[in-house]
Amino acid sequence: MPSCTRLCALLLTLLDPVLSGRTEDIDVVVFLPQNNSFLFSSARVAPALRYAQRRLQAEEGNFSSFHFHLHFYSSDSPNEALFAMVDRSCARKPDLILGPVREYEAAGVARLASHWNIPMISAGALAAGFGNKNSEFSQLTRIAPHYVKMAETFSALFERFGWRSALLLYEEDKQERNCYFTLEGVYHLMSEYPISQFPILEGDPLHVDEIVDSMNDSEVVIMCMGADRIRSIMLAAHRHQLTRGRKIFFSIELFNASTYGDGSWRRNDEHDSEAKQAYASLNTITLLRTVKPEFENFSLEMKSSAEKEGIYDCKDCGSVNMFVEGFHDAYAAVRHRLTRGHETRLQQEEWDRGDISHVEQNHRGHCGSGIH
Amino acid sequence: MPSCTRLCALLLTLLDPVLSGRTEDIDVVVFLPQNNSFLFSSARVAPALRYAQRRLQAEEGNFSSFHFHLHFYSSDSPNEALFAMVDRSCARKPDLILGPVREYEAAGVARLASHWNIPMISAGALAAGFGNKNSEFSQLTRIAPHYVKMAETFSALFERFGWRSALLLYEEDKQERNCYFTLEGVYHLMSEYPISQFPILEGDPLHVDEIVDSMNDSEVVIMCMGADRIRSIMLAAHRHQLTRGRKIFFSIELFNASTYGDGSWRRNDEHDSEAKQAYASLNTITLLRTVKPEFENFSLEMKSSAEKEGIYDCKDCGSVNMFVEGFHDAYAAVRHRLTRGHETRLQQEEWDRGDISHVEQNHRGHCGSGIH
Repeated sequence: MPSCTRLCALLLTLLDPVLSGRTEDIDVVVFLPQNNSFLFSSARVAPALRYAQRRLQAEEGNFSSFHFHLHFYSSDSPNEALFAMVDRSCARKPDLILGPVREYEAAGVARLASHWNIPMISAGALAAGFGNKNSEFSQLTRIAPHYVKMAETFSALFERFGWRSALLLYEEDKQERNCYFTLEGVYHLMSEYPISQFPILEGDPLHVDEIVDSMNDSEVVIMCMGADRIRSIMLAAHRHQLTRGRKIFFSIELFNASTYGDGSWRRNDEHDSEAKQAYASLNTITLLRTVKPEFENFSLEMKSSAEKEGIYDCKDCGSVNMFVEGFHDAYAAVRHRLTRGHETRLQQEEWDRGDISHVEQNHRGHCGSGIH
Repeated sequence: MPSCTRLCALLLTLLDPVLSGRTEDIDVVVFLPQNNSFLFSSARVAPALRYAQRRLQAEEGNFSSFHFHLHFYSSDSPNEALFAMVDRSCARKPDLILGPVREYEAAGVARLASHWNIPMISAGALAAGFGNKNSEFSQLTRIAPHYVKMAETFSALFERFGWRSALLLYEEDKQERNCYFTLEGVYHLMSEYPISQFPILEGDPLHVDEIVDSMNDSEVVIMCMGADRIRSIMLAAHRHQLTRGRKIFFSIELFNASTYGDGSWRRNDEHDSEAKQAYASLNTITLLRTVKPEFENFSLEMKSSAEKEGIYDCKDCGSVNMFVEGFHDAYAAVRHRLTRGHETRLQQEEWDRGDISHVEQNHRGHCGSGIH
């Protein structure tokens, strides 16, 4: 049974109190790391979930037959989330699991969640292996576009424009390996094209001339790394006259996070003018972001929450990246569906598609989370 | 804290009933696969545990303060053992875990066992990664010689006899990969020697001339594969005059199981005489096996149990391989120690060594399991 069918089967069961007039406690267990070096740390994501909790509580008022309880657990060390889930579930199993994000942690929790038939939603678990919904991950729904999506996007672009070869330029941190996994998907899915790779170790100096030389045999250059390095490479490529149509440049803004992507050409330095010209040849692949005013409110609220909670060790805790937005939307959507029993049939069809891409999530947001 | 110290700490706690005169239930959970293609299947190992149970019960009579209960669970699919342990532990956690054998299954159970401070003993979990006792595997004790032991044996032989190079000839099944993991240890530990490898895919025809050619540059040939293939290779090497001291040949009899190793030169065919001469140059690496009469009794009992239980889909279910012997010894040793409170200090020192090699187990067997 696909993940979303199972989720909806559970939603249907949970809807019983709506019809009977009883109220029901819904335990939502959330696994997020305390370590703020992660874009999906508790300090970043928890305020978004609490925001949804407050807003939906106010909207639902006394009409809801459900009391939602958010229980936060840390998932910093590899098995912490799995053990927390095992230890807390003897008394009462959770009704819904949000997170973890990282592959290893998500895999352990997703296997047990599937064994216990508990729906689990993550804005992570991006690796291709989680895609098999008939297996040990049957209860997992992924809310964010996983790594294969990026590969499919490039594959479609190459086919549409008749490009013939690519160079993958990426930062390799040997830990999270987000850029590596993203471009690994491109490499494998587009195996019929000649594709070369140029990993740049995090912390190593950037040898721009060597990098520019490596572009010689490729029509398209796909980059995944921090904003400053993108700027240095674009400046060097411009000086070697590789911009203005000679090569096609892409920068991937992973997770809608300021850590990755092209940022801006502007640094208020002597290269600004040259960088502006170079950036005219740079295309950015990013997630679709809504322009609805509700998103602006949500974004301001996140900044204000971070300030109120006095999180001083997290520079961008008030910013809305893919994980913050994804977990908010997932929680809001499930809650919205549970409290609007009459919409269940339509929603079941939507969930049945399997993993939910961000674009689909935006579409659903119109009637769901309301922040898009 | 090393695994065995933890085990003994638990043993000391459990010894309380001895002093107080109460009796205590000891729940022993055993994870073994039902699938008889495994050398450690339930049909092979469970009779050995029941044999120990009967024999020790009779020995202890009414003097024991403990009632031991064996609970068998299957561990055929990857997460079956972990889920069974989670599901059965809400009511009461087990006091001791035996198995699983395979790396993936053992890892999941060992992590949870360590989280819950439950001692776990396996005759498997042979990979080097389980060796770190300060980590997530702190409660795991391995009773069988793990893969690194084989590498250490060859390393010592090479140093003692001044050999200079080796060829690793092994069967590669791409599933259990026992020969691969065994020889991988040799390859890495002896990295200062020139070592070449020749994997032979299971099911592929044996190209003996090509294999013999590959021996040219190596002084020592180390083989890990089935008995019939060993014989074919030894015959070919003999015909190419590589025996009689020109090369040094080793055959690894993995797990003391008839599936691997040199078996015998005799096949009652026209090559018997030639094979006998060839085998005079073949050395076999096998586990030390006791010659004590108790082992003969145990072995006969295993055959008889297999016949009584009518296991028709398992040719060698009555034979005693390393897993059958290892699990029997582990259970008997722990039980013996628990019922002989006064021996605890000595035993703690022995357990404290960490993982227990089969040779050490033989030594301890004199006062422990009694079958050596």
